[in-house]
Amino acid sequence: MKVPLSGIVPPVVTPLLNRDSLDEEGFEKLVEHILAGGVHGLFVLGTTGEAPSLGYNVRSEVVSRACRQVNKRVPVLVGITDTVYSESVALAKKAADCGADAVVLAPPYYFSAGQPELIEYVQHMVEDLPLPLFLYNMPGCTKIHMDPETVRHLAQLDKVAGLKDSSGNMVYFHKCRELLKDNDDFRFLVGPEELLAESVLLGGHGGVCGGANMFPQLYVDLYNAAKSGDLATTRRLHQKVIEISNTVYRVGKHGSSFLKSVKTVLNLMGICNDFVSEPFHRFRTSERDIIQKLLDSLEV
Amino acid sequence: MKVPLSGIVPPVVTPLLNRDSLDEEGFEKLVEHILAGGVHGLFVLGTTGEAPSLGYNVRSEVVSRACRQVNKRVPVLVGITDTVYSESVALAKKAADCGADAVVLAPPYYFSAGQPELIEYVQHMVEDLPLPLFLYNMPGCTKIHMDPETVRHLAQLDKVAGLKDSSGNMVYFHKCRELLKDNDDFRFLVGPEELLAESVLLGGHGGVCGGANMFPQLYVDLYNAAKSGDLATTRRLHQKVIEISNTVYRVGKHGSSFLKSVKTVLNLMGICNDFVSEPFHRFRTSERDIIQKLLDSLEV
Amino acid sequence: MKVPLSGIVPPVVTPLLNRDSLDEEGFEKLVEHILAGGVHGLFVLGTTGEAPSLGYNVRSEVVSRACRQVNKRVPVLVGITDTVYSESVALAKKAADCGADAVVLAPPYYFSAGQPELIEYVQHMVEDLPLPLFLYNMPGCTKIHMDPETVRHLAQLDKVAGLKDSSGNMVYFHKCRELLKDNDDFRFLVGPEELLAESVLLGGHGGVCGGANMFPQLYVDLYNAAKSGDLATTRRLHQKVIEISNTVYRVGKHGSSFLKSVKTVLNLMGICNDFVSEPFHRFRTSERDIIQKLLDSLEV
Amino acid sequence: MKVPLSGIVPPVVTPLLNRDSLDEEGFEKLVEHILAGGVHGLFVLGTTGEAPSLGYNVRSEVVSRACRQVNKRVPVLVGITDTVYSESVALAKKAADCGADAVVLAPPYYFSAGQPELIEYVQHMVEDLPLPLFLYNMPGCTKIHMDPETVRHLAQLDKVAGLKDSSGNMVYFHKCRELLKDNDDFRFLVGPEELLAESVLLGGHGGVCGGANMFPQLYVDLYNAAKSGDLATTRRLHQKVIEISNTVYRVGKHGSSFLKSVKTVLNLMGICNDFVSEPFHRFRTSERDIIQKLLDSLEV
Repeated sequence: MKVPLSGIVPPVVTPLLNRDSLDEEGFEKLVEHILAGGVHGLFVLGTTGEAPSLGYNVRSEVVSRACRQVNKRVPVLVGITDTVYSESVALAKKAADCGADAVVLAPPYYFSAGQPELIEYVQHMVEDLPLPLFLYNMPGCTKIHMDPETVRHLAQLDKVAGLKDSSGNMVYFHKCRELLKDNDDFRFLVGPEELLAESVLLGGHGGVCGGANMFPQLYVDLYNAAKSGDLATTRRLHQKVIEISNTVYRVGKHGSSFLKSVKTVLNLMGICNDFVSEPFHRFRTSERDIIQKLLDSLEV
Repeated sequence: MKVPLSGIVPPVVTPLLNRDSLDEEGFEKLVEHILAGGVHGLFVLGTTGEAPSLGYNVRSEVVSRACRQVNKRVPVLVGITDTVYSESVALAKKAADCGADAVVLAPPYYFSAGQPELIEYVQHMVEDLPLPLFLYNMPGCTKIHMDPETVRHLAQLDKVAGLKDSSGNMVYFHKCRELLKDNDDFRFLVGPEELLAESVLLGGHGGVCGGANMFPQLYVDLYNAAKSGDLATTRRLHQKVIEISNTVYRVGKHGSSFLKSVKTVLNLMGICNDFVSEPFHRFRTSERDIIQKLLDSLEV
Repeated sequence: MKVPLSGIVPPVVTPLLNRDSLDEEGFEKLVEHILAGGVHGLFVLGTTGEAPSLGYNVRSEVVSRACRQVNKRVPVLVGITDTVYSESVALAKKAADCGADAVVLAPPYYFSAGQPELIEYVQHMVEDLPLPLFLYNMPGCTKIHMDPETVRHLAQLDKVAGLKDSSGNMVYFHKCRELLKDNDDFRFLVGPEELLAESVLLGGHGGVCGGANMFPQLYVDLYNAAKSGDLATTRRLHQKVIEISNTVYRVGKHGSSFLKSVKTVLNLMGICNDFVSEPFHRFRTSERDIIQKLLDSLEV
Repeated sequence: MKVPLSGIVPPVVTPLLNRDSLDEEGFEKLVEHILAGGVHGLFVLGTTGEAPSLGYNVRSEVVSRACRQVNKRVPVLVGITDTVYSESVALAKKAADCGADAVVLAPPYYFSAGQPELIEYVQHMVEDLPLPLFLYNMPGCTKIHMDPETVRHLAQLDKVAGLKDSSGNMVYFHKCRELLKDNDDFRFLVGPEELLAESVLLGGHGGVCGGANMFPQLYVDLYNAAKSGDLATTRRLHQKVIEISNTVYRVGKHGSSFLKSVKTVLNLMGICNDFVSEPFHRFRTSERDIIQKLLDSLEV
């Protein structure tokens, strides 16, 4: 079960009216905004999509609306990470029913599994999944780092299609790739957009760039430049990505800055509501004003 | 809304037939086994109860069965920690409906909230809760340490009844207590059973001891000895507790040793099933045999 | 080579005129101030003594001056922790020549040794040491936690006399003690003064309390109360210790608060210079004023 | 005081006969071996050079021998990181006297300075230094991460010539570069050799590659390929570098694997002694045999 995915697969923000209600109109606008940038796929219910903070009914609605609206224009990936095994499986079945193309799974994030336990967990789950699976390495949120040997081991399973690595650790990324250098079908996607340029220059397949919710074309252009070996363009666009990271994402004081910033920008762009679910909240006016000024001065 | 709770409040293990089904008979036996040891309360759906790994229907069943069977013999506390705000509230309402006495809340455990965000999160939630709340500091699983100042701040809320501290950091425990020395109603319960003796000797109100699933009377006796200032007995029983920690809990290689060990012992005692939910699994025969031998040589 | 040490063994602050010169007069006054409080030993060149920040000539001077002035009134322990093996040995020989009673060794603190490497390191070193050795567990500074099994292993060496545990982790402390319960000669000293009461109540041998530089009698009184099982006095003095920790040690913003605070208090008491060596520096006037006010309101 | 350094600057291993004696003949051979590979500079007394484990007399000998033998063929950088301020300055003066070109400074590594303390520390030290300074970010050993804002701040000092970043965190590396994009003279060198390709492709100035002790030309070729934009060659050589990392550096069980592996390879090549200073030790025969086989199969 291969998934020949390459390019920019934005982790779609989940626009909300309040903690239990999807901003349906905003979601529709957001999907069109992202697709208009030429992206190669969509990933709903990831970390940027605040999936763990959303009730199952909201998650389910996100899946069905995303699939319906994308309507096969690009592949849709669905995050099924959960601390409850059966809920991951249920969400995967929903995804398959709606026509999604693959699911994405990080380790359960309350208890910390050892590597053999993690291997067994994934081995069991793939048997219950109707879709190909991307492994999702996200130690900052799950507390567990999937060892390169664990990835190599799991990559032998027929349904395991690739790795989305959000560790921010490029040594790790390269080591995993080298271990799987004979497995041409296995896909490597990088999480932090600040690492998109180098991962593609050195042979990675693409990026799950949160910033592509706001500026999809920037990341698509950067991907294309790196993919085609146009180093001058790659450097120029890479610097733009880092500039966003050094400005927009640094507003606010906590780990939640990135999420709040992206939703604020989308709101300022007139795309969707900026409600952020607990334990976070939307930016107050002071941060919003700073974001507006940064947005005005950014030349994206 | 005070909860004058003191003593041993075991975090009840959740006996399972499989990942989605409660071992109802085992649960009943377990509750009676624990109560027979003279404990002062029960805490269901905590970390030891594997709550984050259980579907909401199983969690709901645990609450109703626990309350029904305890039938007011001792206070029942219900863990409502979740990454989804509304599910925490729903579980709290269920708990109130079933006659539980208080709820217990750790921070959401996927995203890491800053201290001001955490304060705001709890402030909002208590307004939606029908029962008194115990704060639950559990940085090993949630990645967030509730600062002493955060605890002091939240303790001013009328519904916040106490702190269950499972950080294992007694400097922290003492600092929180000193900050709240003028708040006589605020309850301090310690998580790790290895710290029960000292916390009670120095004025803490009791412990949420996982080992009390197996040997409830040991921990009750230790509490009583420490509470009454009987140092010789306290030291003797404390050493027994540490011996269990240095033997039974060290079987197995991963962070899951404690949970697997307790369920294996309960199974060997004929009390309940030893199924452990994903991402863990029950001990295999080799570890089970070691546990049996340790159990035979322990004089509890 | 047993060292029947019990009680309060303050980690003596190193008074400095500047980064390369001992405040000789201050050091003399400080030693007398501490001894007047009835302490049971002195520990020079520990973390509180800023040993790693001091040149070898200053360290050597501290050893000879301390031994000369104490003049066998109480045992003197000398920290020999270093990243250079031969320098640890040289300092131990100096300590023996000056008449010190034991040395104290934490793991080298740049590279992180694995547990087997750590065991081998200590095994080699004790053969080169002319004095009994206390192991020093200080993971916050060395990045290495000495496993309980490592301590048990090393405790079999004839020259290894005890453990000074500054991890702040009482579960660890108890586990180490239980593993060595048949070794009556092995001494357990606790580092953080906030944990003195409980460690002595439960059978530990004493504490290396930084606050005893300022208020030696407070810690001696607390030790005596805990040792004799006087729980009421223990609780009262323990709370005083925590109050100091919650006030005086919280002035300033960085990890250096404790060190700067103690030196400021000693200076305000007229005992010694408050120079703190790099990478830290003494408190500025604003913090000094806060310390003065706290000092005035403390009833020690 | 600019240092227009670019390219491969290997962190030279320190060959030892025993813990206190330099392998002088080995050191000479090693320097010639490295220079023969076409490197652009040498960095002695870094982490790979085991500087913190070496006595000052050995460090001093390394500096003078390195400068004498290199004899201005390439720039020589000298690590002066120490927990004792005055010793850092003394080593820098020695370096200047011997004709070295720059010094390299990581934060003191026992106590953890806050960022303002770190800034003040460097500000003070540069005034006492006779040579330009490279900042050295090495959080794995020092426990301190130099914030991008700290780097930006310190880069304004005339004597601060660049940053050697060994954090392994390319997001950090890019953020620092973006903050200093208007400072053309500031040099960015990357530590982990696994990150050499991407840092140079995206505008970094070179790498401090430990593997260049063994295979200097490989890293020089990779640098040149990346520098000139030859992506096919860059990818091929990058994969070779990762292969070494995934094989040779993984022999052994502890954090010391890298150091032991490099010294073993150099010994197998007939270049120098493989003694490793405490707290580590040389590989035993079993690991040595594995290294030999890996070396035979590597096509470098």
